[in-house]
Amino acid sequence: MEEVTTQQTILGVDPGTNVMGYAILKTNLNKSEVEVLSVIEMKKLEDHYAKLKFIYEKINSLIEQYHPDVLAIEAPFYGKNVQSMLKLGRAQGIVIAASLHAGMEVYEYEPRKIKQAITGNGNAAKEQVAAMLCHMYPIKESISYLDATDALAAAVCHHLQHRVVLGGKQKFSDWKSFIANNEKRVIK
Amino acid sequence: MEEVTTQQTILGVDPGTNVMGYAILKTNLNKSEVEVLSVIEMKKLEDHYAKLKFIYEKINSLIEQYHPDVLAIEAPFYGKNVQSMLKLGRAQGIVIAASLHAGMEVYEYEPRKIKQAITGNGNAAKEQVAAMLCHMYPIKESISYLDATDALAAAVCHHLQHRVVLGGKQKFSDWKSFIANNEKRVIK
Repeated sequence: MEEVTTQQTILGVDPGTNVMGYAILKTNLNKSEVEVLSVIEMKKLEDHYAKLKFIYEKINSLIEQYHPDVLAIEAPFYGKNVQSMLKLGRAQGIVIAASLHAGMEVYEYEPRKIKQAITGNGNAAKEQVAAMLCHMYPIKESISYLDATDALAAAVCHHLQHRVVLGGKQKFSDWKSFIANNEKRVIK
Repeated sequence: MEEVTTQQTILGVDPGTNVMGYAILKTNLNKSEVEVLSVIEMKKLEDHYAKLKFIYEKINSLIEQYHPDVLAIEAPFYGKNVQSMLKLGRAQGIVIAASLHAGMEVYEYEPRKIKQAITGNGNAAKEQVAAMLCHMYPIKESISYLDATDALAAAVCHHLQHRVVLGGKQKFSDWKSFIANNEKRVIK
């Protein structure tokens, strides 16, 4: 079997203008580890502009510090109303533009797709996604970190997707063994 | 009468992901001149990401070259559907974040407000706005520049607004004389 070295650092982001989750996932073909998992809270910032500026500077500092190759972003394409989509679009646009400018590849994943990739169920609750990530990585589940785990989920979704695209030569030991033990959670 | 020196360079932007209009307006209390008036066409760029990256880099290069103090952006808060608002929000977010990062003040104006400020009619057509701007500045009207004139209109709207806020000490010679000659266009 051919040896393939494919190291990638993925910046996962779940953007929002009140809370933004982010994660750094270091990956190689059949393994990955969580380097950073956190949220930025922006509720206390005085206005919408202060939040946008904060997002911009936080993303740039993450890029500078961890040199990610890829941005994986949770991107709902449908929302309740145009107002919330405009605000969400602003946060997304900032994260995407800063990443592209740094030469990163950008991948967007719909929440349903991310949930499907992580839990096998596109309608899974955030808590189920978090629980699965705690099973896969040495991280601790915490309600206050659900935006962080959503960001990590986007990064892991990209990692799983990317491995599949590479052609099935590699072992998916953790994932496969999980599926084998959780057949009921897989939508067929 | 007190002498007040208030020089400001205003970057006016009408953001969009297919065409983005921009203008640089150099202002002092009762005068202003158009330094730049143009559009960037992005229809030929291969995808949505290339457009977002292009917007980001264009705005940064305008900031570097002209050192504007203020961003005046045309920002519709309501749109036809959530999809278009998400795309618009992305373009807006990029322009706003780059400006804030450069230490600029950011002001958003609704299209209706801009039209009202320029023509006296909040429901004026783009062509009417352009015609008025051609009356105020030595620029030439052209259909292909309607996104550029919209951007200039945002900058001029900010300039007029800002002068009013400063307290009525200054003369509004051009504007006043126009209003005097166009009473029918003023909503009372």
